[in-house]
Amino acid sequence: MSIAYHNGQFLPLAETRISVLDRGFLFAEAVYEVTAVIDGRLIDSASHLARLERSAAAIGLSLPLSTGQIEAAQKELAARNGLQEGLIYLQLTRGADSGRDFLPSPGLEPTLVMFTQAKRFLDSPAVQSGIAVVTTPDLRWARRDIKSVGLLAQAMAKQIAAEAGAQEAWMVEDGFVTEGASSTAFLVTNEGIITRAYSQAVLAGCTGSAITALAEESGLTVVHRPFTVAEAVGAREAFITSASTLCQSVVRIDGRIIGNGSLGPIATRLRELYIDFARRTAV
Amino acid sequence: MSIAYHNGQFLPLAETRISVLDRGFLFAEAVYEVTAVIDGRLIDSASHLARLERSAAAIGLSLPLSTGQIEAAQKELAARNGLQEGLIYLQLTRGADSGRDFLPSPGLEPTLVMFTQAKRFLDSPAVQSGIAVVTTPDLRWARRDIKSVGLLAQAMAKQIAAEAGAQEAWMVEDGFVTEGASSTAFLVTNEGIITRAYSQAVLAGCTGSAITALAEESGLTVVHRPFTVAEAVGAREAFITSASTLCQSVVRIDGRIIGNGSLGPIATRLRELYIDFARRTAV
Repeated sequence: MSIAYHNGQFLPLAETRISVLDRGFLFAEAVYEVTAVIDGRLIDSASHLARLERSAAAIGLSLPLSTGQIEAAQKELAARNGLQEGLIYLQLTRGADSGRDFLPSPGLEPTLVMFTQAKRFLDSPAVQSGIAVVTTPDLRWARRDIKSVGLLAQAMAKQIAAEAGAQEAWMVEDGFVTEGASSTAFLVTNEGIITRAYSQAVLAGCTGSAITALAEESGLTVVHRPFTVAEAVGAREAFITSASTLCQSVVRIDGRIIGNGSLGPIATRLRELYIDFARRTAV
Repeated sequence: MSIAYHNGQFLPLAETRISVLDRGFLFAEAVYEVTAVIDGRLIDSASHLARLERSAAAIGLSLPLSTGQIEAAQKELAARNGLQEGLIYLQLTRGADSGRDFLPSPGLEPTLVMFTQAKRFLDSPAVQSGIAVVTTPDLRWARRDIKSVGLLAQAMAKQIAAEAGAQEAWMVEDGFVTEGASSTAFLVTNEGIITRAYSQAVLAGCTGSAITALAEESGLTVVHRPFTVAEAVGAREAFITSASTLCQSVVRIDGRIIGNGSLGPIATRLRELYIDFARRTAV
């Protein structure tokens, strides 16, 4: 039986319910994080907690616990679920109000919920053979730096990908790829590793940032700039990063083969470097 | 004690809870409607139910009940709450899943929740003296024709309005007003009544559509085009429409007085026409 965390309580996930008046439910006034767990330990935790704090602050929300307390609760949750490999999902909302109004009542208690999902991502079909991506217009709002639960555009993009037999959607705005529906997008060209600089137009990826740093440490050039779909299709390699995929080669974009159609050597190397980093720094 | 509706059950609002795995909570994968109640009867109900059906279809969701059954449940809910004047809030989500994944599991049962809010809108300070509006950048996604609960941008805009002592925010994109955070925006100029045509850039307002039709029936000219903030500030009148405000004069925009600073005669007349129409067609 899966155990969830809800405002200080541990209880069965199936019994974890929130008020219909929770502003996370009524207004998507909520932010979230997904943290990977490997060997029962949290990966890149400080980076995720720092982003949680930034997202919350951007919508005028304070964390109800210190980041240290949140991390302790995450560890306890992983332990209670016997989670060795998988994800911890965390969502923080402005809380349940006494009614529905765009303006929250003063003094609301935030809602903090967490639950785990067992998932094999160290080894999976996508790791063995790479993934297919489709491109689709980026319909999202202007503050993509806030990791909010307003994910309908991303869910729609994922549906479009699934219908095309692809595992991820790269969203396109003004001719340039912004990012994946749930990942950061990278190319490898003669210029080096290409990925978009972080701004309000894209989410600052925790895994992406770590991989960028690891790439630079290992002597690779990383160029922060937008790229077009045409450039992506002609790249030597393409890959995505996220907490739930770590780093995965993209072998097809809109049905066109990238490189020689098999796992890219640089993406494969960066994945190994990241897993090594993850294990070294896990908490 | 306020009574809510939850998937066929009537129960106390304070005890109405949804699963933490509901996709309305995790992905804002949900649409909603707000229907006014006057004299215990539903206002403009067919228009709201038609829009609910359109919003749901746009995200690949079927209504779990016929619109007639939903209306019957709304009437029963109003009756159980003794609601004479106020609002019925309705939210439809894709439903609770067995875990969190961007792709929903097949065969999910949608979640349909409704609750009421008593509210005096036939007479209120805003009706007597008009409202103040501030303008703010429109941060929303590209599918504003879908009445989704991804309302964080609107909640942020309302907060900006409140901090400026205003009751509504008009959102501005590419120099033009799109609409209010929870209302449709109108001007009155020598040209006639100006309001933006419905498209994916704005929500098709139920109250706004009815008022536009009433204006035309009474011989007024309605011009469907975008307008700038400068044009709004120089207008003879400005007003908003929504289910929860019906039709209200705007007497200040960004601190600048509109017309002579008191209720506009055309907005006042359209409000009277709408209330008369609402009572005549209530169900």
